[in-house]
Amino acid sequence: MAKLIKKRSKKAGLPPGTLVHIGEKRAGEPKITLIDYDEANFQERDVKTVEECFSFREKPTVTWINVEGVHQVEVVEKLGNCFGLHPLVLEDILNTDQRPKMEIYGDYIYIVVKMLYGSDPNRLVEAEQVSLILGSNFVISFQEGKEGDVFNPVRERIRSGKGLIQKMGSDYLAYSLIDTIVDNYFLVLESLGERIELLEEELVAHPTTTTLHGIQKFKNEMIFMRRVVWPLREVISGLGRKESPLIKETTEIYLRDVYDHTVQVMDAVEVYREMLSGMLDIYLSSVSNRLNSVMKVLTIIATIFMPLTFIAGIYGMNFKYMPELEWRWGYPAIWLIVMIIGISMLIYFKKKKWL
Amino acid sequence: MAKLIKKRSKKAGLPPGTLVHIGEKRAGEPKITLIDYDEANFQERDVKTVEECFSFREKPTVTWINVEGVHQVEVVEKLGNCFGLHPLVLEDILNTDQRPKMEIYGDYIYIVVKMLYGSDPNRLVEAEQVSLILGSNFVISFQEGKEGDVFNPVRERIRSGKGLIQKMGSDYLAYSLIDTIVDNYFLVLESLGERIELLEEELVAHPTTTTLHGIQKFKNEMIFMRRVVWPLREVISGLGRKESPLIKETTEIYLRDVYDHTVQVMDAVEVYREMLSGMLDIYLSSVSNRLNSVMKVLTIIATIFMPLTFIAGIYGMNFKYMPELEWRWGYPAIWLIVMIIGISMLIYFKKKKWL
Amino acid sequence: MAKLIKKRSKKAGLPPGTLVHIGEKRAGEPKITLIDYDEANFQERDVKTVEECFSFREKPTVTWINVEGVHQVEVVEKLGNCFGLHPLVLEDILNTDQRPKMEIYGDYIYIVVKMLYGSDPNRLVEAEQVSLILGSNFVISFQEGKEGDVFNPVRERIRSGKGLIQKMGSDYLAYSLIDTIVDNYFLVLESLGERIELLEEELVAHPTTTTLHGIQKFKNEMIFMRRVVWPLREVISGLGRKESPLIKETTEIYLRDVYDHTVQVMDAVEVYREMLSGMLDIYLSSVSNRLNSVMKVLTIIATIFMPLTFIAGIYGMNFKYMPELEWRWGYPAIWLIVMIIGISMLIYFKKKKWL
Amino acid sequence: MAKLIKKRSKKAGLPPGTLVHIGEKRAGEPKITLIDYDEANFQERDVKTVEECFSFREKPTVTWINVEGVHQVEVVEKLGNCFGLHPLVLEDILNTDQRPKMEIYGDYIYIVVKMLYGSDPNRLVEAEQVSLILGSNFVISFQEGKEGDVFNPVRERIRSGKGLIQKMGSDYLAYSLIDTIVDNYFLVLESLGERIELLEEELVAHPTTTTLHGIQKFKNEMIFMRRVVWPLREVISGLGRKESPLIKETTEIYLRDVYDHTVQVMDAVEVYREMLSGMLDIYLSSVSNRLNSVMKVLTIIATIFMPLTFIAGIYGMNFKYMPELEWRWGYPAIWLIVMIIGISMLIYFKKKKWL
Amino acid sequence: MAKLIKKRSKKAGLPPGTLVHIGEKRAGEPKITLIDYDEANFQERDVKTVEECFSFREKPTVTWINVEGVHQVEVVEKLGNCFGLHPLVLEDILNTDQRPKMEIYGDYIYIVVKMLYGSDPNRLVEAEQVSLILGSNFVISFQEGKEGDVFNPVRERIRSGKGLIQKMGSDYLAYSLIDTIVDNYFLVLESLGERIELLEEELVAHPTTTTLHGIQKFKNEMIFMRRVVWPLREVISGLGRKESPLIKETTEIYLRDVYDHTVQVMDAVEVYREMLSGMLDIYLSSVSNRLNSVMKVLTIIATIFMPLTFIAGIYGMNFKYMPELEWRWGYPAIWLIVMIIGISMLIYFKKKKWL
Repeated sequence: MAKLIKKRSKKAGLPPGTLVHIGEKRAGEPKITLIDYDEANFQERDVKTVEECFSFREKPTVTWINVEGVHQVEVVEKLGNCFGLHPLVLEDILNTDQRPKMEIYGDYIYIVVKMLYGSDPNRLVEAEQVSLILGSNFVISFQEGKEGDVFNPVRERIRSGKGLIQKMGSDYLAYSLIDTIVDNYFLVLESLGERIELLEEELVAHPTTTTLHGIQKFKNEMIFMRRVVWPLREVISGLGRKESPLIKETTEIYLRDVYDHTVQVMDAVEVYREMLSGMLDIYLSSVSNRLNSVMKVLTIIATIFMPLTFIAGIYGMNFKYMPELEWRWGYPAIWLIVMIIGISMLIYFKKKKWL
Repeated sequence: MAKLIKKRSKKAGLPPGTLVHIGEKRAGEPKITLIDYDEANFQERDVKTVEECFSFREKPTVTWINVEGVHQVEVVEKLGNCFGLHPLVLEDILNTDQRPKMEIYGDYIYIVVKMLYGSDPNRLVEAEQVSLILGSNFVISFQEGKEGDVFNPVRERIRSGKGLIQKMGSDYLAYSLIDTIVDNYFLVLESLGERIELLEEELVAHPTTTTLHGIQKFKNEMIFMRRVVWPLREVISGLGRKESPLIKETTEIYLRDVYDHTVQVMDAVEVYREMLSGMLDIYLSSVSNRLNSVMKVLTIIATIFMPLTFIAGIYGMNFKYMPELEWRWGYPAIWLIVMIIGISMLIYFKKKKWL
Repeated sequence: MAKLIKKRSKKAGLPPGTLVHIGEKRAGEPKITLIDYDEANFQERDVKTVEECFSFREKPTVTWINVEGVHQVEVVEKLGNCFGLHPLVLEDILNTDQRPKMEIYGDYIYIVVKMLYGSDPNRLVEAEQVSLILGSNFVISFQEGKEGDVFNPVRERIRSGKGLIQKMGSDYLAYSLIDTIVDNYFLVLESLGERIELLEEELVAHPTTTTLHGIQKFKNEMIFMRRVVWPLREVISGLGRKESPLIKETTEIYLRDVYDHTVQVMDAVEVYREMLSGMLDIYLSSVSNRLNSVMKVLTIIATIFMPLTFIAGIYGMNFKYMPELEWRWGYPAIWLIVMIIGISMLIYFKKKKWL
Repeated sequence: MAKLIKKRSKKAGLPPGTLVHIGEKRAGEPKITLIDYDEANFQERDVKTVEECFSFREKPTVTWINVEGVHQVEVVEKLGNCFGLHPLVLEDILNTDQRPKMEIYGDYIYIVVKMLYGSDPNRLVEAEQVSLILGSNFVISFQEGKEGDVFNPVRERIRSGKGLIQKMGSDYLAYSLIDTIVDNYFLVLESLGERIELLEEELVAHPTTTTLHGIQKFKNEMIFMRRVVWPLREVISGLGRKESPLIKETTEIYLRDVYDHTVQVMDAVEVYREMLSGMLDIYLSSVSNRLNSVMKVLTIIATIFMPLTFIAGIYGMNFKYMPELEWRWGYPAIWLIVMIIGISMLIYFKKKKWL
Repeated sequence: MAKLIKKRSKKAGLPPGTLVHIGEKRAGEPKITLIDYDEANFQERDVKTVEECFSFREKPTVTWINVEGVHQVEVVEKLGNCFGLHPLVLEDILNTDQRPKMEIYGDYIYIVVKMLYGSDPNRLVEAEQVSLILGSNFVISFQEGKEGDVFNPVRERIRSGKGLIQKMGSDYLAYSLIDTIVDNYFLVLESLGERIELLEEELVAHPTTTTLHGIQKFKNEMIFMRRVVWPLREVISGLGRKESPLIKETTEIYLRDVYDHTVQVMDAVEVYREMLSGMLDIYLSSVSNRLNSVMKVLTIIATIFMPLTFIAGIYGMNFKYMPELEWRWGYPAIWLIVMIIGISMLIYFKKKKWL
């Protein structure tokens, strides 16, 4: 599970709207790419300085500016000022432990979504905050800049000119980005699901303390996923509620589709949580069962040998007058008695199903 | 429990509306049957090529096209194009791990329902996705094509011309299909209920680890059933809310009836869940009780024989001056003491209710 | 707890509105009684054939037809046809595992309530379905026909002509029937409460596995009661919501009163559920406590006698040169040592509060 | 915890509005006091016969009639008839296991509240039902008549003529009574809280079965408090919702204040419930810990003495040819070996942190 | 966790609006500071007598009066009378165990917030009640007067004249104070989070009873935080709902921002609660595991040495005719047998994974 509350001590007490980066420090320049298109035209470029983007502000074509890395406050600030973003929005973009949310400002919508990484079977789920600014003719996406993003398929679609994307506006682009992120949740869930199934097999075969920690770990992952997906539902249903003219009616049907996907993800998360609770019960009871079987071994051994040792002890006594000791067949008789006692004990345990 | 999240890796990143089949691969052609009727006429045929269905598009009679198997994307696509279905609908039809839902499009309603199989006592509950397209004069039903369906009684009713079905429109046909599916839930529940009762008897008689896994398995089945039935409630209440002119007023009373049935199913699912929780408590406490009884046996044996063995040990010592050893009745006296100690121990345990 | 889902396999696949009796089979004819009254007149008769009732259809006086036994489909059908009931209503009357519900049809209201039996201390709670049809001038009540009903006080009140009942309409009669049923819930709860208290005393005095099964059984009873009472609340608040002119304003204040009673019943059910959970915790911990005390006995015995037996063993060795063995007071010294060790152990356990 | 469901068997089947006292039987006459005041005048008297009150019905001054003891049906009935109360209201006044509720009748409001007693550290919380009738110029309060009430401060305030109470109407008087009752809840909670803290200390110091029963007892008390306070919230917010002209606008601000208090009480009740759950967990785990420490003692003793006894046993064997027995230093060597084994065991356990 | 219910016995029965201080007694005079500013001017002073503040009542500039210490009733009373506060408000200011709440009075808003202290790793979270009175041109803040407050950054911002604060009205000042308090919650959470992580490491490495009490302690802290933050959400969303002209539209966007922060805090609190529950499960199962491993040691020792001691006992018997005793190699043979039995036992346990 990613860290819950990031270090924000340095921010406490600063006035609202102060731009401070909260999150993992990262070296290097943020990488900015710009794609500009309409139904007829298409251009793509790597942006060296933020100022290159400013001219696209007023172009009627759809402009998508993707910023990877929000650790350089000035970059975010300059872009924000050019596109008229509120200081509180800029502050939230820099603060990477936001909850997914959606805020409608006069001429743009600010959306926070979490991109998840977790298909690598050896690692836990990690989240990267993605902030989207949806304007009438532009989308700006801010990523934290962790390795890779999931937006490549969207880029491909714009480049190829196939599909609806080039024919539709900036709202459809924003939808496409969110849809890609949500689609990726399914991959993460698929991977988690497979790992939980492996854990379940381990639980049945030979449960150890590691199994318990595994169960607990995946439970925490599910809590984490829920925190990411639950508010996203509201975000998407909020976007579809036609509160802003920025979302066109043709896009609403697509938003309903992503909404269904988030519901499906939530559903699966809840089911996994309940399965993990069930696994915990099985683990705990398997511990008790093992204790039971250990105790049975001890009891069988003690129940057989204690009486026998007592008998041997009796005939080890040094009384002067112990007639049995003189008997010719005393010693074999003792062996016989010992055998009879031992075997009848074993039969008794067999009948009690302890063996 | 059927698998939660189906393999959809191949779909990640594709544009929305791309038609990809998600679900179990299946060989062979999809089987299409067509029934066309009104109050006076009736015809039924097995359809070889999808194109045969197209002419029924404009016929005023009620047409029911049933497609078994959605693994051939082209079949679904052609049908969808002819009947004017939205690409997102076609995508959802092909994606067999949808949640039950209902979407109103201008001139048709898209409904996803899950058909359950589980009356076979040796198998777990399995689900098959059924997509219904309800138009003003047609119903198209898409099944995954697992063996058998539960629609035969509806076919029989149409063929026989008895009952209301031939007199009413396509909405009543769609209702009949959903009603048949929900009726089948009761059979599944009945079968599960009987198996849970068997498990309960086993739990009281001789609980084993298998019993625990059984409890857990049925708990998971109940989680699965709830996932299937809970959203169905909303689907049906949505249909009854008169949001679309496709649902006529005469059908609403019937929808209320199916709605009651889904509530009843949910109710039973919840009660079974609580019963299974109670059974888990009983199982866990029976494990503790067994441990208790094992420990009692051990303690009784140890408490009786340890003092006795000590006494035997004492008179096995080789001290030169041990007057008791010389006594004429020393040995029988020891046996007497041993008896007295042993029997008084037994009486003590009897009183403590350990025996 | 009564059975959850009754056998309905025979019904699966039949068209809606098909009349099939679902429930316990019962021999004999259904018993029909009819009471007809207004402020001035009163007549009561045992009805032999259903047709006798038909003439009361149009009479302006209030007619109460009580049918005990719904296993003869024709009786219900004829009555239903005469009083213009919808086929789905008739189907629900025959199906005795309905949830309590209320449905408003144009000129009558259909109400399903559960009558409970459970005051007999040796039996579990049993339910009988009661269907009420409330028309403008009649009430028809259908019972399953189990022994006895709780409606006698209502009959008495009508006969005696005392109280409001003869002055008011059919809605007040329906209210009176529901009120009598709900009043009876208190008796059932009272009886359950007393039995739970007995169980609680048993739990404190000497908890056994039977106590556990008792707790679980009453928990299931409470789940059952909740299933019966919870939807009844909605039924009654629905009746009071003035959606139908059949409920007159003067009756509303009485419905509010029954509503309060159902809330009180629900309240008590919830409290009992929480008490039973607490009892389960106490049971489980008493099992652990017993294990603890068993283990203490074992440990005390072993801790005292193991060292003593070791000492006895030492002086039972056959070494040639063991000076102690030759000592005059060796043997008594050993007894002294044994005493000292034993007593100091006992003091130690006393201090550790194990004794 | 007070009894949940009081004996009401005698009432079952009686027509609604029948006046029957449900609750503890009490000897003696009900005590009636009357206070009549407006801004200028004040009189107080002990009422001998109910009829004395009737003349105050039409007086414009505020009249407060306080009835202690509702076990004499006629007293309640006469008063009810004079002040025009509905039979159902009278029935509810006599039935002392009502839930807190509020009902608006044309010209009066009927309020049921529970007064709590529980500040005595040796007794559990007890409740007394208080019914208030708020009319435009009178308040009638019915108590069950248990020893003492909490209304004295209100009486004092009216007598002294200080504060707002004499200047305001009957609604403010009703508010004052409810406020006093709710204020008293804090005292009960304070007392319970202190007792829970004592229990917590006991739990940490030396948990016994009594501690467990104490936890469970306080849990039940909290369930009881919640049952009393939760519906009271709705009562008070209902009063503040201006649905009746009997509540004047100036009083609303005071009702908001009591409402806040009930929320605070609920809050505290919920927190105590969670704390008690946590205490239960600690208790259960302390039982396990004790078992662990008992087992450790047993294991240490057994692990040390079993090998030693075995060694002693070996040299107690009577073989003819056992060279060690002949050795000069055999016996001391054995003691040495025994010491070494014993001490190394102790070191081993020290390292394993068992000692 | 701070105390839940403070001593309020002295208040019970007093009329509403009576001014009594409820909370920790504190020595010394309350400290009052006053800051008065608008866009152009700024003055700050330490107030000796309350009367100094009165002249600022009518000044159009924004006046912030901060009172540290509410234990002197007269100070609060005088200030309240001058600024026209309702007696109930004054009562609530003096009562320091309020829930966070917001009340709109004609020309001012009364807000209760809790300031938290908890960054010191050795202490638990403590709360201080802060009451804010927001008027059109003034803000009065009452603190309990515990050491230090978190308002210094706000003072600094006003003094420096930077930021928005001097340009905006009293509502922005109130917002700034609340924002600072909420910002501080993150620091408390950060500190708690780190301590919980330490506890988690301890839990994995060597869980003791202290760990359990730690888990329970932090659970209680989380319950406490939730009690503080949950109602604050409603307070802030209430402020943003434009119900009072005192909150200007420009401030609303800032309130939405604080609202998001409280949601984030709640979210983190909930996640911590679930993590602590998971830790409790791990603790409980680690106790069981330790019991298991103790039992295994005992069983291994007993299972090896009991049979061996029995064998030694057999050859310690004093029968006259025991041929083995005479054998030349009897004694070494016994050692061989003992070795074989011991080693095969060890191999058996190895195979059973007990070693």
